[in-house]
Amino acid sequence: MIVFLQERGDKKRVAVVCANDASTRYAVEKGKEMGFIDPIYVDGEDKDECCRRAVALCKNGEANILMKGLVNTDVLLRAILDKENGIIRAGHVLTHVAMAEIPKYEKLLFFTDAAVIPVPTPTQRRQQIHYINYVCHALGINEPRISLIHCAEKVSAKAFPYTTDYLDIIAEAQTGKFGRCIIDGPLDLKTSLDAVSLHEKGIKSVIDGRADALIFPDIVAGNVFYKTLTLFAYAKTAGILQGTQCPCVVSSRADSPESKYYSLALAAI
Amino acid sequence: MIVFLQERGDKKRVAVVCANDASTRYAVEKGKEMGFIDPIYVDGEDKDECCRRAVALCKNGEANILMKGLVNTDVLLRAILDKENGIIRAGHVLTHVAMAEIPKYEKLLFFTDAAVIPVPTPTQRRQQIHYINYVCHALGINEPRISLIHCAEKVSAKAFPYTTDYLDIIAEAQTGKFGRCIIDGPLDLKTSLDAVSLHEKGIKSVIDGRADALIFPDIVAGNVFYKTLTLFAYAKTAGILQGTQCPCVVSSRADSPESKYYSLALAAI
Repeated sequence: MIVFLQERGDKKRVAVVCANDASTRYAVEKGKEMGFIDPIYVDGEDKDECCRRAVALCKNGEANILMKGLVNTDVLLRAILDKENGIIRAGHVLTHVAMAEIPKYEKLLFFTDAAVIPVPTPTQRRQQIHYINYVCHALGINEPRISLIHCAEKVSAKAFPYTTDYLDIIAEAQTGKFGRCIIDGPLDLKTSLDAVSLHEKGIKSVIDGRADALIFPDIVAGNVFYKTLTLFAYAKTAGILQGTQCPCVVSSRADSPESKYYSLALAAI
Repeated sequence: MIVFLQERGDKKRVAVVCANDASTRYAVEKGKEMGFIDPIYVDGEDKDECCRRAVALCKNGEANILMKGLVNTDVLLRAILDKENGIIRAGHVLTHVAMAEIPKYEKLLFFTDAAVIPVPTPTQRRQQIHYINYVCHALGINEPRISLIHCAEKVSAKAFPYTTDYLDIIAEAQTGKFGRCIIDGPLDLKTSLDAVSLHEKGIKSVIDGRADALIFPDIVAGNVFYKTLTLFAYAKTAGILQGTQCPCVVSSRADSPESKYYSLALAAI
């Protein structure tokens, strides 16, 4: 990803809100060093005011990326979502796309939503698919394999209505509604990401245990996945917001410096 | 755990249903070799019939543990749950308790429910806490730290009503309702299992990032955790059913031979 950014050569201007922590400074300075960003630091006493100023820089085109430092996510989200001065694209929903490099998985893995939408509606879920497909294509994956996650492969209309919606989504995908991609589900995590488990269970799937992207049914499942990866799977992760006029990096305070750096690189793609 | 079983010295009789796969055979034969079980193989053409026979062995006391081989979980569950001939304890619910040894975590971790109850009711959640507390004590943990999992530390009454129930559970725990244990929540996975993340977020918790046990809000979150551990975290896992007259091992077909062996050991505790 970094090499790709360096070869492309253009620099993105990043509005960095309240970079008063070492890990945000590290991420920004490393991005600058590697030559793919130019930071604009936005600091001050009043954090609300800082957020509004940084969002304004993005809105008027002076910055191409928004990055959160030591400020509460909800304060920044309020400025992003503001009806008059915010940067939500008309008719779009705000959602979170994460990326992970996992030593035990053969390729980059993208997933949504670990951080923003509590329980996606069918409309929001379709937007999540559009976004994640867009991000995968931007990173050179021609035909992303997108898995719709559940705890099993059976549809449970009563306990988990979203599993029924999954079938509709697959039908829509076959008409080309989401662009070039392969979608299947419900699948559990193992049958999505491990061909051996898939075959042992006697299941067939066009994804064939090699998903590029995962759509989680709600924020709790997505969040558990994200945090298990960072805690125990030796994974490098990154995360950005989609649905805004420019990419936004809203790492958690407890994310590692490396994770913040990769998020910034992902936003610069 | 194995040493503990060997020192105790008594052998449990295990009814093994349809052990027609290498991994189940491995688990059973290794348990026999290590001296803590004696298997009773229950095989035959009709898998329904095999399940009923194995459950009957447990019901009449000829076997102390039930173990699933190459048979669908729902077929075995039907025999376990049968009103007349099943082995559910009166007034109890059936739930799944898993155990994991994770290289990057300092101690054994127990969690529920990755496999049986889709969305626990408040009553079922309280039984899950009783069971997991019981299992922890059986393994020598004097005062288990039990974390009630969510994607954040804030109560969201509207989107996630269970977070309100968590507060009631904590109040009940303080009156001693669940026996000797420490309960806190809502906590996310990182603040439950990593003291550094907890402190960086500026949160205080009696669990202090060192949970022994996790209660997941639904089967999807629990299942995602279980499968991420086995796929990517180099974890050894085990799982048993609770709420039955005797412990039941219902590993998934795709579980490793080692996982099945540890599950059997956990059931023999």
